[in-house]
Amino acid sequence: MNGFGRLFRLSIFGESHGESVGILIDGCPPGLNLTVEDFLPDLERRKGGILKGTTPRKEDDLPLIKSGVFQNTTTGAPLLIWFENKNTRSGDYEKQRTFPRPGHADWVAHEKFGGFEDFRGGGHFSGRLTVAIVAAGVIAKKLLADLEILANILEIGGESDLERGLQKAIEAKDSVGGIVECRVQNLPVGLGEPFFDSLESVLAHAVFSIPAIRGIEFGTGFSAAKMFGSQHNDAIETKQGKTRTNHAGGVVGGISNGNELVFRIAVKPTSSTPREQHSLNWETGKVETFSIKGRHDLCIALRVPVVLEAVTAIVLADFMMLEQKIGQVNVFTT
Amino acid sequence: MNGFGRLFRLSIFGESHGESVGILIDGCPPGLNLTVEDFLPDLERRKGGILKGTTPRKEDDLPLIKSGVFQNTTTGAPLLIWFENKNTRSGDYEKQRTFPRPGHADWVAHEKFGGFEDFRGGGHFSGRLTVAIVAAGVIAKKLLADLEILANILEIGGESDLERGLQKAIEAKDSVGGIVECRVQNLPVGLGEPFFDSLESVLAHAVFSIPAIRGIEFGTGFSAAKMFGSQHNDAIETKQGKTRTNHAGGVVGGISNGNELVFRIAVKPTSSTPREQHSLNWETGKVETFSIKGRHDLCIALRVPVVLEAVTAIVLADFMMLEQKIGQVNVFTT
Amino acid sequence: MNGFGRLFRLSIFGESHGESVGILIDGCPPGLNLTVEDFLPDLERRKGGILKGTTPRKEDDLPLIKSGVFQNTTTGAPLLIWFENKNTRSGDYEKQRTFPRPGHADWVAHEKFGGFEDFRGGGHFSGRLTVAIVAAGVIAKKLLADLEILANILEIGGESDLERGLQKAIEAKDSVGGIVECRVQNLPVGLGEPFFDSLESVLAHAVFSIPAIRGIEFGTGFSAAKMFGSQHNDAIETKQGKTRTNHAGGVVGGISNGNELVFRIAVKPTSSTPREQHSLNWETGKVETFSIKGRHDLCIALRVPVVLEAVTAIVLADFMMLEQKIGQVNVFTT
Amino acid sequence: MNGFGRLFRLSIFGESHGESVGILIDGCPPGLNLTVEDFLPDLERRKGGILKGTTPRKEDDLPLIKSGVFQNTTTGAPLLIWFENKNTRSGDYEKQRTFPRPGHADWVAHEKFGGFEDFRGGGHFSGRLTVAIVAAGVIAKKLLADLEILANILEIGGESDLERGLQKAIEAKDSVGGIVECRVQNLPVGLGEPFFDSLESVLAHAVFSIPAIRGIEFGTGFSAAKMFGSQHNDAIETKQGKTRTNHAGGVVGGISNGNELVFRIAVKPTSSTPREQHSLNWETGKVETFSIKGRHDLCIALRVPVVLEAVTAIVLADFMMLEQKIGQVNVFTT
Repeated sequence: MNGFGRLFRLSIFGESHGESVGILIDGCPPGLNLTVEDFLPDLERRKGGILKGTTPRKEDDLPLIKSGVFQNTTTGAPLLIWFENKNTRSGDYEKQRTFPRPGHADWVAHEKFGGFEDFRGGGHFSGRLTVAIVAAGVIAKKLLADLEILANILEIGGESDLERGLQKAIEAKDSVGGIVECRVQNLPVGLGEPFFDSLESVLAHAVFSIPAIRGIEFGTGFSAAKMFGSQHNDAIETKQGKTRTNHAGGVVGGISNGNELVFRIAVKPTSSTPREQHSLNWETGKVETFSIKGRHDLCIALRVPVVLEAVTAIVLADFMMLEQKIGQVNVFTT
Repeated sequence: MNGFGRLFRLSIFGESHGESVGILIDGCPPGLNLTVEDFLPDLERRKGGILKGTTPRKEDDLPLIKSGVFQNTTTGAPLLIWFENKNTRSGDYEKQRTFPRPGHADWVAHEKFGGFEDFRGGGHFSGRLTVAIVAAGVIAKKLLADLEILANILEIGGESDLERGLQKAIEAKDSVGGIVECRVQNLPVGLGEPFFDSLESVLAHAVFSIPAIRGIEFGTGFSAAKMFGSQHNDAIETKQGKTRTNHAGGVVGGISNGNELVFRIAVKPTSSTPREQHSLNWETGKVETFSIKGRHDLCIALRVPVVLEAVTAIVLADFMMLEQKIGQVNVFTT
Repeated sequence: MNGFGRLFRLSIFGESHGESVGILIDGCPPGLNLTVEDFLPDLERRKGGILKGTTPRKEDDLPLIKSGVFQNTTTGAPLLIWFENKNTRSGDYEKQRTFPRPGHADWVAHEKFGGFEDFRGGGHFSGRLTVAIVAAGVIAKKLLADLEILANILEIGGESDLERGLQKAIEAKDSVGGIVECRVQNLPVGLGEPFFDSLESVLAHAVFSIPAIRGIEFGTGFSAAKMFGSQHNDAIETKQGKTRTNHAGGVVGGISNGNELVFRIAVKPTSSTPREQHSLNWETGKVETFSIKGRHDLCIALRVPVVLEAVTAIVLADFMMLEQKIGQVNVFTT
Repeated sequence: MNGFGRLFRLSIFGESHGESVGILIDGCPPGLNLTVEDFLPDLERRKGGILKGTTPRKEDDLPLIKSGVFQNTTTGAPLLIWFENKNTRSGDYEKQRTFPRPGHADWVAHEKFGGFEDFRGGGHFSGRLTVAIVAAGVIAKKLLADLEILANILEIGGESDLERGLQKAIEAKDSVGGIVECRVQNLPVGLGEPFFDSLESVLAHAVFSIPAIRGIEFGTGFSAAKMFGSQHNDAIETKQGKTRTNHAGGVVGGISNGNELVFRIAVKPTSSTPREQHSLNWETGKVETFSIKGRHDLCIALRVPVVLEAVTAIVLADFMMLEQKIGQVNVFTT
């Protein structure tokens, strides 16, 4: 159940400290020009080690295209995008194996997979796998060249001055969370289905596959619950469906309405805080104090925007194919 | 794309003012005792016409079991649960057809379906279809007899005193929204998948198929974005995974961790407000003032809890089958 | 798992001697003119009681369109096509319940569903459900108006003179099988996928959901195994892909090649033969002699052609949507 | 649409003369011991260059396990099995690019993928990809340790003396086809679904994804069409469902009945015959004579048995998981 999508279909694989992570993409139309260089800008945005507050672990993050591309062009066959893990320091994790880390998947993975899980650095649960999602997002964005998909951080540690939010974390020697917003321009009308596969349903589905996400809201979101209907309703003003306000965030009845798509997500503080924590010691069976080793982000939210854009593009590409707005052969050749 | 689920699979159908609405359920295990009476309490909770602030339209809401049950017991074959629409007054809608109602699917449906949509009362987009979801939820709840799934309203119109929130709406002659919370006890560890099908992903997917939902958050949700990691992390205290706090709301790494599942949703104010509104007049091509006719809820959030429980039960039943915790023949016979 | 299709998606339900049988169709494009009359010719072809060698059981087989159609036109919402069972004589079956009928699903259904199956007349396994498949086929055929899909009986009881084959059965007081061939003209090039969803894969999948089918072969089929490559290969002669011969039956590499699609299926003799048989008596635990009661076809193959056309149309409609050759709004309005 | 399976889910990728071929397997339970050595015997059986009549192209066919295994044991995360293509001679193919080879996918691939397909050696359509299917089959077989799945060649070039069949091909300087039979012992009762996902449906679906297959029949298959019902029916003789005869080949009503599963497939003669052929010359637009270059099998049927076993095991593993007969954590640990 590591797959996603109906016509633009992804299957993700890999482990943080295993040999590789990557993604297999089935359903990408033929004729799309694609080279390694296409991936680099978004992969760079996702990388740690650059921004204050992100992990010093660095991977080359060089995407290897192992199938589905011939003469720099997609063929219509499945695309395997593969990343080697080069810079692993698994010893860090084996040492602290006795403590299932709070906020991490250690304990649930152990229970679910009967103790056979690759526990090193979160294994298959690691945020490392978002590199593969970003890669898939790059392809989706190329398929959606007419759209503008942009995610931005609105808040860090409760502060809209992001620098101040980070400084709080550094001073407190603790990790912090944040709020990220995504906006999409030029989305056509009609994406989404009335029941079960509403545009919000599928976007939320994808968003909650990003580690550390705790909430999502569209348009006015939770504030809508405090408004009157006459305030919240967006008056339709043109034959193209443009509305006076955009409290709906571009989705009505589960379907895109041609206005700007707007949604926000809540990112929890990085679970790997530098501060001492308590957890069960699996060996002694007692709750004890311990500290997280390894290299981690103080604020994972800083790296989320490009991942959020990626899942958004992935979802929209799939819906565009369902609506037959992309996918015909030769559409990308010029 | 009106289907949902992997092993406990639903397909919904029907229109608000058509002949019927209903749901086809594939994958329900054999041997579950099931009669019409099982459905009545939850259907009653969903009905309008009883609570202050809900629509005076009344349907008998008698579920007809058209297949899949023999001698009051599920057979393992697909279950068709069917509701006749008896109390329709479509004339109300034909009159105001010239205005695509703000906040409703009228305009997007028209665009998406090329003008062929059944426009009467929202057609297939109508909240009327939630009666079918509640019916499926009843079956899911019976399959999950060991769990306790309970949804409650936390706020109406921004007020935690619900009576006061409704009064505000009545006085303002306007509609209001609300916040609904769902809690699940006794959930086993291990439901959910690491990527794409996290427990939050699939729950959010289902939740956003309920009309009028604008946001969802798990555990501390959006507040998590303002916390430090050391505050937010839930210390694991027992071998069964019980945590000191439950900021995670029972899900870590996308997987249930054996603690209480907790999440909240934002319900927008009913789009059909009694107040005058503005919208495009399809005939004149101009923005004009109009009033909604028809029978409507002042606060649709009042009817949401039982629907939220239903989609929650549906999602959990499906995950329980994937984990082979329900589904064996004969498990329900005693 | 009673569903089929990716974009033109069916879910079947019902039992032979239950209240109803029917089919829910999701993904039918809006704008298709559809009335009850459209279904009658194919339903008539499937009916027993007319041809020599078919069952005297007669059902009105009146399709009731319960959703998805408005003003005689599909809306894009799911279509529920529903058939009442009126002419049931379940008493026939309850009497012979002690014997699991050879060739029927009685025994496997009992084991698989833990004894909860509706055993009357084969229940959900009954050939009665093919009425619903034929109904879905009618819709698929309307979507494929440019194609010509035609199935014919090639052999009955080993005789290409069909009258003689039936006569053999009548004289022997036994049931017989047959061979049915399906041919499709005007199929576009490009339907099918290289791996797993080859055109033959999906057609065979659908065909083996018709009860009593024991084999399928494409083009020269089993005879191909005796040919030399130079004989079997079809020389390509035009830029449109027309081949000199058509040993491939219109499919190469799993993909339609623009030539006539040709395949044949083997239908076993009706399991309900009028002759005495042996089977386990569930009550005594001994193998005993018994006779089938109830009304049955001497040669079920006689009723198969229209069902075979239906599943073929269903599969092709789905592939045509995947290739974006049907599905755009308004395509059916003139 | 290069995926297959519901709970044991495969996604295949790669091209004959690209960098690699392989398969991603999602849903393999944790706790299965798995090393490279497990794959070698079946991969060896599939290899060309050993048997008379098979291609001299040799690949190391060393499976690289890139994810999903930790400490020689499956973790429950997706397994990537990867094969490098080392021994490619693409120049062979580029030379003959002007002729779409009869019996091959060259022409349909060109049409379907708009000329962007990787045409070297059949690209993604190549029989080379069956190496990945065999690898997935090895894992499925390990999950099905209690079953015995065995495929054998019954006929080569119309001869049951296989040596003589091959000799015919060598003398005629032509390619030949064959018949392969698969038998499965110890299959539990109850695999398969009444409609659409009958055991035959899903097996046939998988089988027709193997290149060069032209037909499939279960039990007596096409011969059943010539039998009387009283001859064909298999009398049930024991409470375990054992039947006197096994004309049904182990499947009744689409469900396994506990008897031996028996089916046969027809393999066409290798399309790449050494003899001169005719085909359209894409450059001149005329039908011309040409000869196939490259290394090929005289009789591809010789290499099919292990591939047939693989797809059979893959299908059965998936059904066993659906029936909850495999999949629980720890089941493979001893």
